[in-house]
Order: sequence, then C-alpha cells, then structure tokens
Amino acid sequence: MAIPKFKDMERTYGFDEVALVPGDTTINPDQTNIDFTLGSFTFSIPILAAAMDAVVDPNFAILSSKLGGLAVLNLDGIQTRYEKPEEVLTEITQASDTEVTSLLQKIYSQPIKENLIAERIQAIKQAGAICAVSLIPANTKRLAPVTKEAGADILVVQSTVTTARHISKSYRGLIFSELCQMVSLPVIVGNCVTYSAALELMRTGIDGVLVGIGPGAACTTREVIGVGVPQVTATMGCAAARETYFKETGKYVAVITDGGIRIGSDLCKAFASGADAVMLGSILAQAKEAPGKGYHWGMSHPHPALPRGTRIKIGVRAPLEKLLFGPTSVTDGTENFIGALRTSMGVCGALTIKDMHKVKTVIAPAIKTEGKYFQATQGMS
Amino acid sequence: MAIPKFKDMERTYGFDEVALVPGDTTINPDQTNIDFTLGSFTFSIPILAAAMDAVVDPNFAILSSKLGGLAVLNLDGIQTRYEKPEEVLTEITQASDTEVTSLLQKIYSQPIKENLIAERIQAIKQAGAICAVSLIPANTKRLAPVTKEAGADILVVQSTVTTARHISKSYRGLIFSELCQMVSLPVIVGNCVTYSAALELMRTGIDGVLVGIGPGAACTTREVIGVGVPQVTATMGCAAARETYFKETGKYVAVITDGGIRIGSDLCKAFASGADAVMLGSILAQAKEAPGKGYHWGMSHPHPALPRGTRIKIGVRAPLEKLLFGPTSVTDGTENFIGALRTSMGVCGALTIKDMHKVKTVIAPAIKTEGKYFQATQGMS
Amino acid sequence: MAIPKFKDMERTYGFDEVALVPGDTTINPDQTNIDFTLGSFTFSIPILAAAMDAVVDPNFAILSSKLGGLAVLNLDGIQTRYEKPEEVLTEITQASDTEVTSLLQKIYSQPIKENLIAERIQAIKQAGAICAVSLIPANTKRLAPVTKEAGADILVVQSTVTTARHISKSYRGLIFSELCQMVSLPVIVGNCVTYSAALELMRTGIDGVLVGIGPGAACTTREVIGVGVPQVTATMGCAAARETYFKETGKYVAVITDGGIRIGSDLCKAFASGADAVMLGSILAQAKEAPGKGYHWGMSHPHPALPRGTRIKIGVRAPLEKLLFGPTSVTDGTENFIGALRTSMGVCGALTIKDMHKVKTVIAPAIKTEGKYFQATQGMS
Amino acid sequence: MAIPKFKDMERTYGFDEVALVPGDTTINPDQTNIDFTLGSFTFSIPILAAAMDAVVDPNFAILSSKLGGLAVLNLDGIQTRYEKPEEVLTEITQASDTEVTSLLQKIYSQPIKENLIAERIQAIKQAGAICAVSLIPANTKRLAPVTKEAGADILVVQSTVTTARHISKSYRGLIFSELCQMVSLPVIVGNCVTYSAALELMRTGIDGVLVGIGPGAACTTREVIGVGVPQVTATMGCAAARETYFKETGKYVAVITDGGIRIGSDLCKAFASGADAVMLGSILAQAKEAPGKGYHWGMSHPHPALPRGTRIKIGVRAPLEKLLFGPTSVTDGTENFIGALRTSMGVCGALTIKDMHKVKTVIAPAIKTEGKYFQATQGMS
Repeated sequence: MAIPKFKDMERTYGFDEVALVPGDTTINPDQTNIDFTLGSFTFSIPILAAAMDAVVDPNFAILSSKLGGLAVLNLDGIQTRYEKPEEVLTEITQASDTEVTSLLQKIYSQPIKENLIAERIQAIKQAGAICAVSLIPANTKRLAPVTKEAGADILVVQSTVTTARHISKSYRGLIFSELCQMVSLPVIVGNCVTYSAALELMRTGIDGVLVGIGPGAACTTREVIGVGVPQVTATMGCAAARETYFKETGKYVAVITDGGIRIGSDLCKAFASGADAVMLGSILAQAKEAPGKGYHWGMSHPHPALPRGTRIKIGVRAPLEKLLFGPTSVTDGTENFIGALRTSMGVCGALTIKDMHKVKTVIAPAIKTEGKYFQATQGMS
Repeated sequence: MAIPKFKDMERTYGFDEVALVPGDTTINPDQTNIDFTLGSFTFSIPILAAAMDAVVDPNFAILSSKLGGLAVLNLDGIQTRYEKPEEVLTEITQASDTEVTSLLQKIYSQPIKENLIAERIQAIKQAGAICAVSLIPANTKRLAPVTKEAGADILVVQSTVTTARHISKSYRGLIFSELCQMVSLPVIVGNCVTYSAALELMRTGIDGVLVGIGPGAACTTREVIGVGVPQVTATMGCAAARETYFKETGKYVAVITDGGIRIGSDLCKAFASGADAVMLGSILAQAKEAPGKGYHWGMSHPHPALPRGTRIKIGVRAPLEKLLFGPTSVTDGTENFIGALRTSMGVCGALTIKDMHKVKTVIAPAIKTEGKYFQATQGMS
Repeated sequence: MAIPKFKDMERTYGFDEVALVPGDTTINPDQTNIDFTLGSFTFSIPILAAAMDAVVDPNFAILSSKLGGLAVLNLDGIQTRYEKPEEVLTEITQASDTEVTSLLQKIYSQPIKENLIAERIQAIKQAGAICAVSLIPANTKRLAPVTKEAGADILVVQSTVTTARHISKSYRGLIFSELCQMVSLPVIVGNCVTYSAALELMRTGIDGVLVGIGPGAACTTREVIGVGVPQVTATMGCAAARETYFKETGKYVAVITDGGIRIGSDLCKAFASGADAVMLGSILAQAKEAPGKGYHWGMSHPHPALPRGTRIKIGVRAPLEKLLFGPTSVTDGTENFIGALRTSMGVCGALTIKDMHKVKTVIAPAIKTEGKYFQATQGMS
Repeated sequence: MAIPKFKDMERTYGFDEVALVPGDTTINPDQTNIDFTLGSFTFSIPILAAAMDAVVDPNFAILSSKLGGLAVLNLDGIQTRYEKPEEVLTEITQASDTEVTSLLQKIYSQPIKENLIAERIQAIKQAGAICAVSLIPANTKRLAPVTKEAGADILVVQSTVTTARHISKSYRGLIFSELCQMVSLPVIVGNCVTYSAALELMRTGIDGVLVGIGPGAACTTREVIGVGVPQVTATMGCAAARETYFKETGKYVAVITDGGIRIGSDLCKAFASGADAVMLGSILAQAKEAPGKGYHWGMSHPHPALPRGTRIKIGVRAPLEKLLFGPTSVTDGTENFIGALRTSMGVCGALTIKDMHKVKTVIAPAIKTEGKYFQATQGMS
C-alpha cells in the first residue's frame, strides 16, 4: 500500500551551506563594475544600510550616500519618537541584559511625531545626500505623504512579512498600487522570501523587494514563530520572480537581500543567489559612526507581547569607509566588503553584478575543521 | 551486477530541521481562530497538559480548563498511589541525581488505589472543570469503568507505544472498539507515529491519537531501545491517516502531537505538520502551578528493570497564564505560546488550524551561527 | 556539455543516523525469542564477546558461556604470548597516555607460544564452556590444527579487513575452503563490510562473517587510512549477501555486527539492519570480570609502524550479568542490553531476530537538543 | 504552477564526508607501487611539498628530493626578497597574533630580487636534487626565463585561482601554450577546481594541474570571498578532465590535490578521488627541518588590502622522514603518511595509484562519537 503523503517539503539553503565556483575566465578585481540602479538612481556600491535604530541616523545616512551607497532611515523608531534620540540610545546601550527587552518595549511605545519625520528627512537632504526612509505598513497610508512632502527620495515599506494582501479588522490593508501612484517615488517593499509573494508585490508596480525573514543576527523570528526561509533559497526565489516579471513587462525590479550577512563570503553569495543589492544591519552597526555605539537590536525586538529579537553586543570595529573598502589586516571576512565582492567577482569571472547572478554555486556544507589537528592562534574558531 | 538492497530507509524530520514559509496573504493575529474540538467538547486553545506527575495534579487540571485548554491527569502515577502526593513529590525533587532513578522505581511500585482515582476525578469535576484522565493499556479494562463512574469526561489510554493489537500472555489485549462502546466517552489513544498504526487505531472508533515516541525532554526511549520517529514526520504520517479515515467515514479524529515541543516555533511547526492540538510536558512543568516544583521526569522513567527517562531540572518560569498568553519580555520563544501560534498563523496567512495544516513547510536545517562573529549578550547560545 | 562523472558515491549510514519504527502490533518483551544459531550450536542470547585482550580471558569466556552467550579468545595477543598475562595487563593499565602505544608495540612483539594456545583452550573446555578462539589470517594455517587439537569448538579468523583473496609475497594466501574442510569446525571470518566481499567469503563454506571496519571505540582505522563503512549500511550489505547465498544454496550464514555498538539502541539497530548476532568490545570491557580492569585497546593498536587504535579509559561499570540482563537504574542505554533488545522487539512487533530484520527503519539524524532550553541534571549531555 | 528555478546547485563533498570501501581482494602493503611521474621525472613517493615560505627553503627541497618526493620553492616570497630569510622568518614566528598580519603585509611588499632566484635554484641543484620552483602568473613571463637559466627542472605557476584566460588591464594575460614552448620544462599550473577550467588548462600543453581553492589550514578564501569547492569533488572534477584529455590526445596530465589534507585518511581519499599526487602544506610545515619553526601561514595571507589567510601555530612534530615513513606511535593519522597510503591501498586491493583511482568511495559523514559514553584518555577528541 502506498502511504499518502501529507505534504511535500523542499530543501532550502543558507549562506553556510553553499560555495561559489571559480570561472573558466578570471578578471582583475579593479575591472569589475558593481553599480546598483533603483528607479532613476544609480549607486556606485550595491549596499543599503538597514532601517534599524542602531544602524542609521541622519548623519550615518549622509555618510553612506557620500560613500556611494544608501542608508534607510527608520521612521518607526527612536528618531521619530524622541526629540533627542541620543539620550534614548545611551539608555539602551547602558541597560543590563535582563532589563533591556522591557526597556525597549517601553521606549518604543511612545508615539511617532510627524514634525520629527520632516526634520530628520530635511537634515539628510540639506547635506546633499539621497534620502531613503522606511515606514511600517500600518503607518504608510498616513505618513507616506508627510515623507514625500519633506523631500524623501525613496520610500521603503517594511515589516517582518509584507504581502500584497493583508487581512485586518483594525485598518484597511495597504494597496501598494495606490501607494506607488500617490507618492511617485521609487518604492521598496519587504520583507518577503518566496517567488509567489515577490511576484505579486512586483505586479503592484513597486521598484524593489527586500528579501529575508528571520535570518538577521538580532532577530529570533525563526525561534519564536518557526517562520523563515534561509537566504540563498529566499533570494533565488525572489530573483526568479524578478526574471518572470521582467519577461512579462520589461521592468526590472531590484531584489535586495536583507539580513543574515555576517562576512564577506555571505555578501558574495547573496549576489550569486540573484541579489541586485544587499541590506546590511549588524555589520554596519559596527561602524564607528553608527548610532548603536557597539550594540545592535532588531526592530521586532520591542514588540509589547511577543518580542522576537535580541540586543547583541557587536563592538565598534572601524570607520564605515574602512569596513566597506578596506584596506584591512583582519583575515576572517569581517572587513573590506567591497574588496571581497570585487575579488570574488574576479575569480568567478564576473564583470558585473548580472554576471555574478550566473556564477556556478554548489552545495558545500563542509566547514574546515583543521583546528582539531593544529593549534590555531588567530582567526580560527 | 546490481547489489540487492536489504531494506529501504526513508528520511524523516524533526522540528529543528524544518521552517514555515510565509503566505502570499497575511492576517492580523487577533483574527485567527485556534479552537480545538474533541467529540462534543470545544476548547478555545489547542493545548493539552501531559499526563505526567510533574505537570498535572487536580489543581493544575482545574486551572487549565479555566484557561481554555485541557489537562490530563495520570491515573497510573503518584496521584492514585498516595493519599498525600505532595510529600512524595517533595521527596523526588529533593533526591540527589545519583539516587533519583532508584527512588522513582520504588515510589512507582506502590499499588494504585481505586478510591483515589474517584477522589481525584471528583475534585476536578466539583470545580466545574472538564476532566480528562489517562490509564495505561494493561489497567484500562479494570479501571475505565471506575473513571466513568467517577465522572471523567475524556479517557486517554497511553503507553510508550500503543497499537490496536498487542500480544501478551499475561493479559488479553485491550480491544479499543469494545472500550469505546463501554465507556461512551471521547477516547484518546497513544502513542503512535505512523500512518498505518494511526489508521488502524482510528478504525477502532477512538476520537484522538497522541503522536510521538521518544521525542520528549524527559524521555530516553530512542537512546535505550532505538525506537522513535522525529515529530514532523510522525505528525504528518498520522495526519495523513486522519485524512484517509475522514474520506472513508466522514469522522474527523483529532491528531495530537505529544512531546518534543520546547519553544514557540516547535509548537507552530506541529500544527503545520498536521496536528489539531499539542500535548505539552516539560514546558508546562515550568509553570508556577505545576506539581513538579521545577523538576520534570518521564513516565517511562520508573520502569523497574529498564528505565527510559531522566529527571531534568527545568526551573519555575512563570504562572501558567503568562506561559500561554504572555505578555513576555523573553525573546527565545519560551513564553507566550498562544501569541507565537497566532502570530505564526498571521504571517503564514492561516485563519484556522486547518489552514495552518496547508502552510508550506521547507527543510531548513541551517541554524543561525552569528555568535561566531559577534559577541551576543542575551538569548543567543 | 554534460560533465563526465569520475565516480559515483552512495550515501551510507551509521547507528546515530537511523531509528526504528514501532510496529502495527506490539508484543510483550518476555515473549520474544532471541536465540542465535551457529553451525550446530544454539545460544540463548545473540551476543559475542570480542576477541580483544581487554575483554576476554579464559574466565570471562567461561562466564559468557554460562550466561548464554559466546566469548572469543584472542590467540594473537597477550594470553598466548605470556605465561602470566595478568602482569602484562597490569603494566598496560598503569602506563601513562604518552607511553602506552610504544609499550603495546613492545608487548605485542613477543612470539606466540603454541603450548599457551592449548593451555588456554583447555582451561575453557574443562569448565564445560563452549570455546571460540580467534587467529589472524597469517597465522591460521599454522595454528588452526593446534586449536582443533586442543578442543576449540569454533574458529574465528579475523583481521581489520579479510577477503577471500589476499595477495602477499611473504605467505601463500589462506584458502578458506581448504581451512573449513581441514578443521571441520564452525568458522567465522572477518571483518568485511560489503555485499560482494561477504558473498565471496560465504561461498568458501564458512559459517559466519564479522561485519565492521573502523567503527569500534578503540579503533582509528578510518582516521588513519580512510577506510570504513558505517555499521548500518555495512550490516545491510552483508545481510543482503546472506539472503543471496541462502537462495543459492539453502545454507544460512550468520552475520555478526562487530564494533561501533555503544548503547542499547545501537544494538537494537544492528539487528534491524540484518544482524543475527553482535560482537561487543568496549561495552563488555566495562564488566567487572573483564581483564582490561577499566581500560580497553584495539587490536590494531600495537601495529609496530602504523598503530590504528587508542587505549581508552572506560571504567568498571557492573558485573557482566547485570550489564546484559539488568535490572538497572541508569537511563542512557548503557546497561541491560538484553532488556533493551527485548523491549525494542516488543514495541516493533518482532517475535524473533528474523522478524527484527524486517522492522521498518528510517533515517533520523535529529538528536534531541532540549538541553538548550532546560537545565538537565542527569544523563543528558 | 511550477515555480521557475533560478539556478541548479550540485552537492559537493570534502574529505570528512567520504570513506573508502575495502576491496574484494587485499594486498600486502609492501607490494604496492606508489610511483608518481611528471614529464620525464619519476618520483618514488607521490608527495609534493607546497610552495609556501613556512614549508620549503632550499635545504628542505634537497631533503625532499632525497626522500623520493618533490618540494616546490616559492619564488614570490621571502626566499627571493631577502638575502637572509632566516631573520625574517624569525621575526614572523615571534610576532604577536594581533600584529602578524600587518607584519606579513609589510614583509611581502619588498621587491623580488632576480639574483636571489638564481642563487636559491643553484643551491638546490648543486646538492643533486630535483628543483621545482613556483611563480605567480603576473611574474611568470618576466621570471620564467630566469628560472630556466638558473637550472630549475620543473616550473609551477600558481595563484589562488588560475585559468587559461585572465582579463586584466595592467598586464597581458599569460598564455600558457607560449610559456610551455618557451621554457620546455614540465609546467604545473594551479589552482583550479572544475572539470572545465582544468580541461582548458590541459589543452594549453601543461603537464600538471594543482587542485584546490580554499581548503588549506592556513587559508580563509572561502570565508572572505565565498569561493571554494571541497577537495573530493574538486579532485574528481579535475581527474575527469584528465581522462577526457587523455582520450583526446593520449597525453596524461598529472592531477595534484593541493590543500586540505590534514591526516592520513585525507591523503588516501585524495588518491581515491583521482589524484596522481598530493601537495602538502601544513603537514610538512610540522617537520623539524621546515623553515616555519612550528608556524605556518598562507600565501594569500599577506595581501595588502584583503588578506585571506591566517598564521597558525602547528608545532614541530618530527623529522620529515619520520612524518612520511614512520614508524610512529601516534594513532590519529598525523604521522607515517606513506605507511597509511600503502596500508589503505592494501586493504582496498589497489596495487598502484591508478588502481586506487578506482576504489569504491562512499558518502559517510558519520563521525565516531563514542567519547560521549566512555572517558577517552588518548587521541580522541
């Protein structure tokens, strides 16, 4: 008797489980092109700073723009709830481990002030930087006009999981096609992890999707509610949606891998999985200029009843410019991310990010374990 | 030459190896419906407290009923062997690690007293609570009438492995179809882990099956006798049997995943694997009101010749209501199980438990290992 | 272009990677039959004590026989090189870790004395026990007649890897068909791990094969020379050879899993993988009566140029009878191996070892990790 | 709806994931033949010492040649940048962990001196040894004539990834077919890891390929840029290219597995994966005669902007002769590599390296974990 199957389960993969295969041609790293285009904007590096309070404040956004990237300012956090966010940030970093979640729950229960939204955006724009801001879906209809008015260039609508259709009794679901028409700005929406959800979002007219549920260093979504798709599989699914949508319409929607990137190799693998850009949280929170002062916490962390994040101590590592471009003397992939990307592209024979999408990728979970037979003195764990 | 195969082996999966995929629609958690129906009873939460002496005593059963769930009182344990179970429980929790197994073997060798069975059931009923009790198969024919007489509402027949056919020389195997007719109460039987065993049990006329052999925190069955099927595969197999039996007869038999659930994500995955309800042991033993006082031990533990369990120290965590409903400030999924379930259903687009059965599930064994590159301060191990 | 494949590789499995599935029928453990037959001998338990110097001396062989099993005396070791083996054993157990391998290399370079072979065999026979002895292939032609003469009942020819054909310039390869005719005793040969090697050995007329290369606790063959097949796959392969050979000839050759069994579950899985009996080394070296006095070492350990084993400290756990039959108060499967086997057979619905061969087995690598969320106090690591 | 796939990913394997299967015939180890042929040279052992500054200096090269193997002198390192390399080596070994990478970056920025190239080669040749030297691709056109002039016997062109086609604006890509004609010496090129890249290199007329990207103990390429293929799969791919090329042309190009070999079993598995020889780095750096004095570092380590290696402390273990040929009293595969290879070939029934290519290999990731149930005293971790 054949036993009926209850459901099929597909194998998925994360960064640690794959490796990139060198090409049959190699290219000098300095000849690679890593431009990233979103709407009418072109960025010289394909890196976005995450809309998290430990990562981006107006000064960090200005610096990111100068260095060729893009930082997203979180309009649902401390910057728009408090006149003087520095004091609140200090309070968070000084809290003990046992009390920090309660403290965050309290801090994030303060109301958002519209005047602060305008103020933060204008601070970024006045410095000549490109300004991207993020809203949560429930606030978007109300606050998107305010951000547009204040001069924001790019709008990000972001929550743990965002779909084109949301069922709620407390507010009418956000209609992304209406939003796109209303703001006439490039709109990025996330997060999503599947072909079908990404494709449905793309069909609303948005310009980019954020990919990733549960993988970030400061996120415990997978532990708490069991939901998550590892980033290699998630990025590949959304990239396949981009290809489908491009064939349907000729419009190229950016796929941005968000979360789970810890070291250079992860970043390189995100592009080989189909990403057009990556969004970095905990890595950039380690920059000298980041507001988190050596700490990082997830934006699902302050949930009043079911927090799904942790505050992690990450330390202050180096100025943002050095983190991104090196040079470095560390050997474990935690600095010089752009150098790592260009070198990876070089040995894989990829001139552009789109070439990188085609690089052969293999399942290679084997981790080096030489430590067993030698006594490592540096950088090996 | 083709080498003949000795036997085929199928790959099975446990909670840690799968993840849930968000839906193309999302739903506000407060709109989800998590009712669980057994016979004519409907419970507002799909959680059963395990028939284990460290988890359920009459007071705990009353409290569970008030909170919308169901606790099962073990009639093969301390509550029915001792007039004053509190003293015995204290003795167990105060025993040293080296002597505790011998002590349990001694304690559980005392005879069961029928008058205590009646007394415990009546205590629960008099408080207005729904009363479920459990017997082992060898005692069921003799004691089931006693429980019925005393007013029990639901009868659970449970041992490590229970099948519709048992071969023994010391007693005539229990015939479940006869039992169901005799007691005319909802009957739950377990444990089982396969499609065929579950289907055969369902065909005897029972109302629910308990799924799970070997996965519990206080159980070492898999270590001692090698028997066990990981809970995702086991639940899926029994859920497939439920579908087959429903197609055959129109009767819907409840599938209850029992054991191995440690955190919110495990519970959510049990439902996505096909469970109608879950039975929790070690999690509820952490409730302030649980009789185990911070300890937990398995019901195969006191076996006189081949104990298959351990006493584990689990600590006292929070009142039962907070464990189930929150709010919480812990971020690792060990509190607010109902909140976790509703949130998971929301992001997966499931309005009901039956919708949750259809949620896409993937094989995703990758565990987050960011700890290697950052210094975590809370909740990460 | 299709890339040509250099070679195919099949996935293999060890004990830790599989689990047994309960049957649709269950049986009371006391009704199971675990007899093991070899030639004209029938043993009431299917357990052989390994031909290792830390496990079997004449007294241990006598005791094993009394308890229903069979111990194999190593004729290539200390018992046949030294008049007073106790002194040498003491020297080994008292050596420091750093010097023990050199010491073993020295001790095992002494010549074997034919008179001691006779003496040891007669000691066993005079006690009324069944006497099994082991020789290495290079010594077999010379010493097999001596063992026969001295009264041995069963002859084991054993080395790391033994095949029906061996190429050497120093001695003419042993012809097993000639040996079987010459000694007219039941002959067991090993070790082997594949269908083809086992089948070829069976066709020489032998009565049993030992299965296992590299898996033992005191063996490092896999680390040193890369050779080994995990025991579940190895046993299944040799069991398939037994079935093929039985179909060809009607003769049933015993398959004996040797090595890698550490706990009750491993032993149960060996039978479900097709074993007729198991050979235990490190487990029995823990018996109070074992000559190793709490230590154990592999028989490839004393190789003069390339030792492939370790001396491990295993401790003295319990008398042999208790190790085999219990009762026990330990809960991790390290005592009461016969109780574990009978219980496993019961829940799997197997009346005999041949029924156990048919028990459904699944790939289930998931290991319980509850320790992360609770604080275990006993038996969990 | 079938979801379009973004890309396919093949599973790859490393040494720890496979095991060798014994043959149906066994052979005495002393009858195996392990000759390795490259161009007109035949070596009595198939082992090359890696072109790394901690492994090979002229004295080490002379000793390797005497013992039947071949050492490759790195002409892009300390030996050709410094008159007195001993002083520089001492400086490296005495640097602290935190400063060593910066120090290496400084040391390796000194220019290469052509006169030192000649001097080092002549020192080796004057001792009657076979002299192999390595250049990086960017220096090869300029320095290959110098090495030829000075009397080098074998030329190795080596970088992290070397392909037949390299795109650069700073120098015209090296044309290997031109190089082979110019130097008329056996030319080995590497590293590569795929069938297609190896085949394309072979078609340029070279005599050997080095296989391996990222696997070495002192290399962090996979961590930093995500590129790498585990050595079993990489070796099999390049060996398949060798077979294809041999069928096309009748020329047999040597496949040399380079990196990732830590113990005897890894070395044996490299040959079973198709290698004709292996190149050892960290293992030989442990020789008493190695210039690294107990330390080892990768040749990508000193990269000025993106170092991809670590200095590891490996200790001084034994003279080179003992490391290669034993005898030994260590039991974990870290000494007597030739003994391990011959023993492995013996039990696998392989008379020659080409027979070893055909040995059955299985996927067997199970690692022995007996340590959990016993207390190991030696060699088990």
